[in-house]
Amino acid sequence: MQLTPQQIDAFHTDGYLFFPSLFSPEEMAPLIAEVPALYARREAYNVREKGSDAVRTNFAAHLVSEPFARLARHPRMVKPVEQLFGEKLYMHQFKVNGKMAFEGDVWQWHQDYGTWKNDDLMPEPRAMNVAIFLDDVDQFNGPLMFIPGSHRLGVVDAQHDLTTTSYPLWTVDHALIRQLVERAGGRRGGIVSPQGPAGSMLLFHGCLLHASTSNLSPWNRVSVYLSLCAVSNHVRRFKRPEYIAHRVFTPIDCLPDDCLVKPYPVDLPWRDGLPASALQTSLDEIAA
Amino acid sequence: MQLTPQQIDAFHTDGYLFFPSLFSPEEMAPLIAEVPALYARREAYNVREKGSDAVRTNFAAHLVSEPFARLARHPRMVKPVEQLFGEKLYMHQFKVNGKMAFEGDVWQWHQDYGTWKNDDLMPEPRAMNVAIFLDDVDQFNGPLMFIPGSHRLGVVDAQHDLTTTSYPLWTVDHALIRQLVERAGGRRGGIVSPQGPAGSMLLFHGCLLHASTSNLSPWNRVSVYLSLCAVSNHVRRFKRPEYIAHRVFTPIDCLPDDCLVKPYPVDLPWRDGLPASALQTSLDEIAA
Repeated sequence: MQLTPQQIDAFHTDGYLFFPSLFSPEEMAPLIAEVPALYARREAYNVREKGSDAVRTNFAAHLVSEPFARLARHPRMVKPVEQLFGEKLYMHQFKVNGKMAFEGDVWQWHQDYGTWKNDDLMPEPRAMNVAIFLDDVDQFNGPLMFIPGSHRLGVVDAQHDLTTTSYPLWTVDHALIRQLVERAGGRRGGIVSPQGPAGSMLLFHGCLLHASTSNLSPWNRVSVYLSLCAVSNHVRRFKRPEYIAHRVFTPIDCLPDDCLVKPYPVDLPWRDGLPASALQTSLDEIAA
Repeated sequence: MQLTPQQIDAFHTDGYLFFPSLFSPEEMAPLIAEVPALYARREAYNVREKGSDAVRTNFAAHLVSEPFARLARHPRMVKPVEQLFGEKLYMHQFKVNGKMAFEGDVWQWHQDYGTWKNDDLMPEPRAMNVAIFLDDVDQFNGPLMFIPGSHRLGVVDAQHDLTTTSYPLWTVDHALIRQLVERAGGRRGGIVSPQGPAGSMLLFHGCLLHASTSNLSPWNRVSVYLSLCAVSNHVRRFKRPEYIAHRVFTPIDCLPDDCLVKPYPVDLPWRDGLPASALQTSLDEIAA
């Protein structure tokens, strides 16, 4: 899978690319089947919604579950990002975000790279956000919303929101959101929300402003949400636990294209539990 | 304005009717212009969002503001409801719901007639919800969502939600919502969300299940939200303050069709402040 020059231009202009139904229902089935068992684990890597048992974010499923380990090495996902960055990648974050029926809460407007830079000391915004839908996404189950082109502003000021939901987030000032939405077209395209069937994929820039509302519908909106970082751009600090921000910078070695439907062997280093080292954190800077 | 037989059938089947752009921008302008002053008043009738100064609901604007007093007697709104109920109407509730940019919080799934019956002792669900959009409504500013046909179930069991938001509400069980959405078509029409420009009007049955998500967009979604009750079906108890549930059962006398653009004289009994009597409540039942 190679991106066309038009797609590359669109990515630089808008900050995202959408690939509806990139994966087939047969390819998604083993991933979807794993989610309940994953969410049932009482481990630090399952962050639950405020005042509810519903999972908001599960971390590092690619280190504990075979189907997710295979997805993490899928060429249809990895190759386009390698093409955009012009080098090999490592897995910086791997999340399975719940946004469960009735319970899924808002994510306020934010950029991801702000956190990667401030907490993880990632040198440049050369890490790509990837969202893969495990459920159909429509306007009713709390879809992602983007402000097109907002990535071109680089890192913007943010406040650390520790109260709105159960997951701390650097969120962005309302006046700036208003201004960026206006610049992007106001009510005609100033906010976009790519929606489509399970198996669709979104690539979006680490500086693209995004948010999502609560999910009041009876339909889960589970998605894999990961970030692929250019190897030379690896983080320089382990301030956050390893299950949140990974510390292995080995380039991803892709599996064949049919890896979601054939049982290629994969390593699962955390299958038997989270190692104590994954909880250790440090403020020391590491060498490049 | 007379409803067609098709519209009447659609109302009985689906529980709602949508009239996009029923009022022109010129007709809406004086209403829109009044909202900031209305919301600025420090009166009991302005209920604010949890942890914010943004207004969630303003009550009884038709008793304090000329443009809203005229809207409350508009034939394009009143006549279709008279036609559906076959009798004259009185104003049971009159709200200007904020759902302000960035601040507007969720309304969980609920029916309105449950409250009218339990609190106000309204005999039958012969009161019509009317929503008139003061702002353009799209998928991004927390639009109303309906479950078509759910009104045919009558009053369903509900729990009194006193925690989610700042306004107490009788909300409905998730298992029942799931079942009703499935019956209404599941992902193909099981939830609908009529969206359109400012000046659009929705009529919906007092038993129709509805909800709305939070508004994370930079666009307010202010709407007039009122209920017109058949006069013979007037409430039998004044358990709630008068600014919430009105106590004057005089039939509404319509103004001419151009009443939003010409200064027809109207009474404004609460213009100089909320009378003390409006705060008095009682558990006594009154005569029919």
